Amino acid sequence: MLQEPAIALGVPLRLLAETATSSAAQVIVDSTVGDYTDLDTLMEWSRGCTVVTFDHEHVPTGHLEALQDSGVAVRPGPGALVHAQDKLVMRDRLTALGVPCPRYAEVRTASDIADFAAAGNGFPVVLKAPRGGYDGRGVWFVADAEQAEEVLDGVHAAAPGASLLAEERVPFARELSALVARAPSGQLAAYPVVESIQRDGICVEVVAPAPGLDPERAVQTEQLAMRIATELDVTGILAVELFETADGRIVVNELAMRPHNTGHWSIEGAVTSQFENHLRAVLDLPLGSPAARAPWTVMTNILGGEVPTLFDGYPHVQARDPELKVHLYGKDVRPGRKVGHVTAYGDDLDRVRERTRHAAGWFDGSVGPED
Amino acid sequence: MLQEPAIALGVPLRLLAETATSSAAQVIVDSTVGDYTDLDTLMEWSRGCTVVTFDHEHVPTGHLEALQDSGVAVRPGPGALVHAQDKLVMRDRLTALGVPCPRYAEVRTASDIADFAAAGNGFPVVLKAPRGGYDGRGVWFVADAEQAEEVLDGVHAAAPGASLLAEERVPFARELSALVARAPSGQLAAYPVVESIQRDGICVEVVAPAPGLDPERAVQTEQLAMRIATELDVTGILAVELFETADGRIVVNELAMRPHNTGHWSIEGAVTSQFENHLRAVLDLPLGSPAARAPWTVMTNILGGEVPTLFDGYPHVQARDPELKVHLYGKDVRPGRKVGHVTAYGDDLDRVRERTRHAAGWFDGSVGPED
Repeated sequence: MLQEPAIALGVPLRLLAETATSSAAQVIVDSTVGDYTDLDTLMEWSRGCTVVTFDHEHVPTGHLEALQDSGVAVRPGPGALVHAQDKLVMRDRLTALGVPCPRYAEVRTASDIADFAAAGNGFPVVLKAPRGGYDGRGVWFVADAEQAEEVLDGVHAAAPGASLLAEERVPFARELSALVARAPSGQLAAYPVVESIQRDGICVEVVAPAPGLDPERAVQTEQLAMRIATELDVTGILAVELFETADGRIVVNELAMRPHNTGHWSIEGAVTSQFENHLRAVLDLPLGSPAARAPWTVMTNILGGEVPTLFDGYPHVQARDPELKVHLYGKDVRPGRKVGHVTAYGDDLDRVRERTRHAAGWFDGSVGPED
Repeated sequence: MLQEPAIALGVPLRLLAETATSSAAQVIVDSTVGDYTDLDTLMEWSRGCTVVTFDHEHVPTGHLEALQDSGVAVRPGPGALVHAQDKLVMRDRLTALGVPCPRYAEVRTASDIADFAAAGNGFPVVLKAPRGGYDGRGVWFVADAEQAEEVLDGVHAAAPGASLLAEERVPFARELSALVARAPSGQLAAYPVVESIQRDGICVEVVAPAPGLDPERAVQTEQLAMRIATELDVTGILAVELFETADGRIVVNELAMRPHNTGHWSIEGAVTSQFENHLRAVLDLPLGSPAARAPWTVMTNILGGEVPTLFDGYPHVQARDPELKVHLYGKDVRPGRKVGHVTAYGDDLDRVRERTRHAAGWFDGSVGPED
């Protein structure tokens, strides 16, 4: 999706792709298939690049430092990105900054976890792999010491002695996301805070702006995200995933430093999409307005379902709703995989949401002609 | 620009490019460099394509018929496209349909032209090459018989005996453009009628909707464009370029059957851009809404000027106007060449126009820091 504003702005992209069939490789002419964990591959591929950026956080920090030492601008830089790569580093840093986080501890043994639970946190405890998690993977909810031990055994079978992050399970009322773009100059652009609806650890729907969010708290939340972006020296998009508790507290859940699923609504819903602003930020260009273009914008993910050929969904979906915007990623359909999304905007939130849910459900087969 | 909605919709494009450095070849992975006037090249390249469409009208009609006979869907079809390729065919057909056109005649000799002028039309006479003109090329305004003879001599030196189209010079007050998308099913989507401002035969600015256009005439003009699209069996975008006379008559100037410069405003200014609707139409998918998203949208072309490196314009232009949208085409800068465009939208037409003019002028060097 970064290629769309790159075309508009006349910015040539060069891609290091994991596979020749990846979504990005289908639409970027200057593509190389290679392993980003191999330093020689990275160095060779990046020769001649002005800036290197990412669509995930998994490039090893040492490699990024080596790239930077070779004279390539790495944005976000490794010193910032580590906070999106390593949840323990993130928790320690945010806590030092006074940013509200769940109570947490680094744990290596079942007794560490039992101690954490006993120290006023109780079970269930949330266990997270500090690195490499995604869409619910690398996160476990353990109800007691026995379940904790099972998770630890599984983790240690693959990585002996590895530590995990233990967190209190925050009794949240809903999840929010605060997206900001930050340029090397320090310029910031804060998108409206959105509500993100998750199912099985996967974001399924985003509503912009977050319905019923107190305006003052919305501003404070944007300011929090801007402060984190500044303190961590982020370049590009920073997504701050948040819990809102029933009593109105905001607690940071996760950080991502790249265009993020909770910002896809901005393609049609904002003056400047998160993808365009990520590009502008990493190129050290002035940022575009993140303002919303409509009172309500809803983005619903299309998850892989029973319908293997997504194209077959177009005639119905497009005829039913001429104002809907559909994005398909050119991925093979696998159950639960994010293979596209739909966006609608308008004045009436219920109506807008009905439109995106119907369309996404049509593509995944959960909505039929009788609905 | 067609690649942007193609990415969003997950539609793989295959390109037959004139040169490896053409704008489209920079952003379409499956590109072949070849000569579209060579039938073998066309046939070989099109193998496996579901649909063939165009970003200009210059593919020979016979080649298109051969493609169609080979089983490829050609959209718009050769029977429609000939009306955008050959101005004499277009004039005869529109006249037969009762569509208001300038008075015209096919001419081959200076005395033909003198006869045309004498038959109530007078000089100046507009002479047009029936095929191959573009951006003012292939169009001559001749003030008298002597100038007419000079043009004819030039034309006949290259193409002995070729006929020209002679037209009365319409005393127009301004130029309008009516864009419609049409699907093979017959479904139509009519964009708001826009005003197009030309300089030296080149479109420099488009205002959507056309300011001060009588609402009833606007509807009639959209209906006229829809009727032409239907009668000519167009698939995809049809742009009908029009003259509006001081006494309020609408006269057809030119037809184009492809996404058109007078529709670039729709990328940000309409719910569905002309590029997305062209794609949907040629793929026989339901069309998207052509409704405007803002009261006023202005598109100003960036013409090649004194500044060779367009990128250098970004810091000023983007910092001055965070809501502006810039499109650069990746073309080498040559004086007067369309190398990009800028779009702004808002409630106040004067302000919106000032924004696009300033930005376009900054890119071409005609606007400086003192402006």
